[in-house]
Amino acid sequence: MDIKVSIIGSGNVATHLGKALKNSGATVLDIWSRNFENAEVLAKTIGATAVKSIDDIANDPSDLVIISVKDDAIHDVASALIERKGLVVHTSGAASLSDLSPLQNHGVFYPLQTFSKHKELDFSEVPICLEANNDDNLQVLKNVATALSQKVYEVSTDQRKILHLAAVFACNFPNYLYGVAQQLLSEHELSFDIIRPLIAETAQKVQTALPTEVQTGPAVRHDEETMAKHQKLLQENPVWVNIYQLLSEQIKKSK
Amino acid sequence: MDIKVSIIGSGNVATHLGKALKNSGATVLDIWSRNFENAEVLAKTIGATAVKSIDDIANDPSDLVIISVKDDAIHDVASALIERKGLVVHTSGAASLSDLSPLQNHGVFYPLQTFSKHKELDFSEVPICLEANNDDNLQVLKNVATALSQKVYEVSTDQRKILHLAAVFACNFPNYLYGVAQQLLSEHELSFDIIRPLIAETAQKVQTALPTEVQTGPAVRHDEETMAKHQKLLQENPVWVNIYQLLSEQIKKSK
Repeated sequence: MDIKVSIIGSGNVATHLGKALKNSGATVLDIWSRNFENAEVLAKTIGATAVKSIDDIANDPSDLVIISVKDDAIHDVASALIERKGLVVHTSGAASLSDLSPLQNHGVFYPLQTFSKHKELDFSEVPICLEANNDDNLQVLKNVATALSQKVYEVSTDQRKILHLAAVFACNFPNYLYGVAQQLLSEHELSFDIIRPLIAETAQKVQTALPTEVQTGPAVRHDEETMAKHQKLLQENPVWVNIYQLLSEQIKKSK
Repeated sequence: MDIKVSIIGSGNVATHLGKALKNSGATVLDIWSRNFENAEVLAKTIGATAVKSIDDIANDPSDLVIISVKDDAIHDVASALIERKGLVVHTSGAASLSDLSPLQNHGVFYPLQTFSKHKELDFSEVPICLEANNDDNLQVLKNVATALSQKVYEVSTDQRKILHLAAVFACNFPNYLYGVAQQLLSEHELSFDIIRPLIAETAQKVQTALPTEVQTGPAVRHDEETMAKHQKLLQENPVWVNIYQLLSEQIKKSK
């Protein structure tokens, strides 16, 4: 892919995106981050230059600038790039397209995945959600996105905010519940390994089915006796009892 | 594996276990189920005989009888087998070993996985939790279990009840939350496909890490602004707001 990109930010998303861009043949020119050392680490990995001032990116010859910073910093970064004529995007699920509207050419490039810096992942399977202020810019983003991933979606700001919210229910909350399971096992001298295959299979099942079609467990069977026993086992942790009751009630209502 | 097994029950666990036994070279002799037609279907699949009366199993020449029925039916089934001298096990996570204590030789053979009848799965990856009333019986169960799976654990009744509870947090509740995500997307004309890779990766991450190490999302970042926006998006469904608040509070407390 014959495109020059600069990146603002050096966190999980910037890191994975930078590597994926490099792997797809793009040239990453400059990287600026509030934390210069992090920018240097990423720059070294992908043959880019860590720059010391955001102004160096404001005036560089890249075709596309990707802002991958915390949501509350997007406004300040955009202000620093106000003179740029070229395309600038952010990678946020929760920020609006219009957060970049002071910039002449702008868009959103939102990879919907949970990234950890030190865990490799296959970017070709990462859904990328795109939005832009006009069709030409959208086409540029589509070209970049399809070079990185097989899963490219055009998504409005309102839809993207729903996606971002849905991701909390599909990723952050399940991960917290895995942690409750892990803690229960650990308290009873059981290895988390015993339950890891169950976690994997539960996620695997909904790759081809809908969650409601494959719901299992005592709540969906309306097995009140088992649910009462479970709550008794949890009694030393009243918050876990609350969670158990709240989620079980909803599952019971579903069938 | 040179062993003759009979099965009582024809549900998800009985079906997957019966197939795995057959594949490992065991002979499945008889199958009895309250629902004779289901017993016939399973029997045909694995070259066994569907029998019309549980008494046919009480007196058959199998080395091992596996009871795979609902928890509240275990007692009645065990009573019908009271004359048996050979080993009898149940497959329940929540029932005690002692639920079979009227029988001379008894144990537990609990496969910790979420089974759906029509979804194939690799039984060699299914953790099997064993318990028995003496060492000889435990050794028989170990021989059978290791022929089916690489993951065999010796687990007491108390520990198994914790495992069964942990499975609700690791499987049933996450699946319910996937369903909330799916409903949110569907209400905004977004395909569940967009979020499926995120679900898979979230489960994948904890195969090598602990959940607390890989927690992401607004709650763990204490990003109150995003959490407030999310709750506003959920406001038409107060129960989902409750779930969001309860789980977010716990995640916030964890860091």
